[in-house]
Amino acid sequence: MSPRIGDASRPARLADPGSGIGEDELALAARNHGLPLEALRYDVTPPGLHYVLTHYDIPYVADDADWTLTVRGAVRRPLALGADDLRTYPTATVRVTMECAGNGRARLDPRPVSQPWLLEAVGTADWTGVPLRILLEEAGVEAGAVDVVFTGADHGAERGVEQDYQRALPVGVASGDEPEVLVAYEMNGAPLPPQHGYPLRLVVPGWYGMAHVKWLSDIHVAPERFTGFQQDVAYRFRRHPDELGEPVTRIAPRALMIPPGFPDFMSRERVVRPGPVVLEGRAWSGRAPITSVEVSTDGGRTWNGAVLRDELPHPWAWRAWRFEWTAEPGRHLLSARATDAEGTTQPSSQPWNRGGFANNMIQTVPVVCLSPTE
Amino acid sequence: MSPRIGDASRPARLADPGSGIGEDELALAARNHGLPLEALRYDVTPPGLHYVLTHYDIPYVADDADWTLTVRGAVRRPLALGADDLRTYPTATVRVTMECAGNGRARLDPRPVSQPWLLEAVGTADWTGVPLRILLEEAGVEAGAVDVVFTGADHGAERGVEQDYQRALPVGVASGDEPEVLVAYEMNGAPLPPQHGYPLRLVVPGWYGMAHVKWLSDIHVAPERFTGFQQDVAYRFRRHPDELGEPVTRIAPRALMIPPGFPDFMSRERVVRPGPVVLEGRAWSGRAPITSVEVSTDGGRTWNGAVLRDELPHPWAWRAWRFEWTAEPGRHLLSARATDAEGTTQPSSQPWNRGGFANNMIQTVPVVCLSPTE
Repeated sequence: MSPRIGDASRPARLADPGSGIGEDELALAARNHGLPLEALRYDVTPPGLHYVLTHYDIPYVADDADWTLTVRGAVRRPLALGADDLRTYPTATVRVTMECAGNGRARLDPRPVSQPWLLEAVGTADWTGVPLRILLEEAGVEAGAVDVVFTGADHGAERGVEQDYQRALPVGVASGDEPEVLVAYEMNGAPLPPQHGYPLRLVVPGWYGMAHVKWLSDIHVAPERFTGFQQDVAYRFRRHPDELGEPVTRIAPRALMIPPGFPDFMSRERVVRPGPVVLEGRAWSGRAPITSVEVSTDGGRTWNGAVLRDELPHPWAWRAWRFEWTAEPGRHLLSARATDAEGTTQPSSQPWNRGGFANNMIQTVPVVCLSPTE
Repeated sequence: MSPRIGDASRPARLADPGSGIGEDELALAARNHGLPLEALRYDVTPPGLHYVLTHYDIPYVADDADWTLTVRGAVRRPLALGADDLRTYPTATVRVTMECAGNGRARLDPRPVSQPWLLEAVGTADWTGVPLRILLEEAGVEAGAVDVVFTGADHGAERGVEQDYQRALPVGVASGDEPEVLVAYEMNGAPLPPQHGYPLRLVVPGWYGMAHVKWLSDIHVAPERFTGFQQDVAYRFRRHPDELGEPVTRIAPRALMIPPGFPDFMSRERVVRPGPVVLEGRAWSGRAPITSVEVSTDGGRTWNGAVLRDELPHPWAWRAWRFEWTAEPGRHLLSARATDAEGTTQPSSQPWNRGGFANNMIQTVPVVCLSPTE
């Protein structure tokens, strides 16, 4: 036997029709976690409730004094910055709703085999750090640069390829200010937790989570387009295995409802009593402001407008919405759907692709309203 | 239709042979989460990496100033204590390794359908609060009291029974000092996070997680044995549905290994290169001190002693262990097993019961060691 990486690391696949979640998917679901939907109540998600996805192991970093961030490649003045150096630059704090590109994957049919998110891979935090454009200006990006490549310290294998996690942004996005990309060292006013990238991570407001490279160690300005695994193999909208597909970039619009009433432990079905029930939740889009949220209490046959809370000071964060419902005994199917200023509304049928990305199909919340005497 | 609680809340069941994880189990796995095993490196688990299991929704508590803890029942002086009142009592801080009673459930065959933990439902924290025995002394427990019943604010349904989460301890355990039970208001020196019971939770060192009642609102001293759902229906060792079964109490011994090398994203299999590899991890028992950890690198055929780190100042916390292995190319199956001072060693075959409790069957970690040229 001559063991190779492919002995542990196999090609992508779709789940067999009707098959339950496999042990590999379960192992991911047990270590990563979503936002319990009742935590949509918080403007800023409390520590430990924000969704987490790590491709490989969480790197162990005892002290950020040992960390160096390099900025190099097609630049006139390469940089090597310690954590203390970074704190001498101007800082910015931005409230960002972050969502995993794979959110909704486990609701797809057929199901792409990967981290099996239902609906909960989201969270909102205040991130503080140095605007990336300031570091790139100081380094002096050379004319003709195309992509900026970000390398994290997390190391693993994926579909036979051993790799450090790497993603790129076009130079124009990396050095832009709409959104302003951050090299962040604080989350909600405290050092980053290990699972969120301690000591440094990239924050790219409006983009799905795969762009927010954690445990950031290197920024490389490249004169050609980056074609690494996470850019050209993973994180592409692809219906057939042999196409390149469009890249996954900004977050599609979505509304989520705090499931009303109380749950059954096992079925997770919701129970309410007859009478007034406030339905509330959050809505967001990484492409354009949310312009409306509608609610259906009859399984999507009819829709009514919800009230949006004014939250303009945080253009990259979710908006709260509410709707007053009067529950009557029986079974009900509740839904909310968001529309953004680009005119995109969430679909009622699945936007399927082989990676299971950006499935923003409308949430449905089954509710049992008890008889008045129960 | 006359909707009843049972329309959302159904009996317990075992999974069909060979069936994958169902959507109900997945919904639990997505909102609850374990300790990513590489986080066994930390003596005290960082915020957000400690395991979390909540039966129902996490209650929303904006401010602990609005919280009252009552102590009542068979006592001479009932108490009603606000958060500020509790801080006037003597405090204690104790480092506790907490584990879910259902840890290991998804490795059982047949698999009880519930939260599908593999191995990772554990964590260690420093908990600070008021010793319960001090509150009970002040209230004056009456002679003949049997159980002390703890009520949390989390409300839901389970197998047709609508309930607030409630558990009891025998009076002797509740008022004892070995372990000393705490009414905790801090975790690792900060207020409890919402998912760990803000503002108050019970901490019962050495016991499985179901005893550590979160969002604690009431302590009721009862003259008879408590027979509530979480005491007499759930959390019992039962092989047949019609027996009462023994109660689940203290944590059985277990060792876990930090999976060495690096993972494949999807299979979670581990990859190492030939040469020296340090195997390390933690071991714990809620019944008695850990006396040995052994490691096998050949699928359990032979075992060798690991080195235990001295950690006597924290008798209720896990102990670190390490073992030096020389990896050679090929496939290997690594395991560790713990033995405690009561003489109990982890089993190599499953200790099955209908609830899937206390499955401390030995962990196995498949590893591919690459050829030197890979």
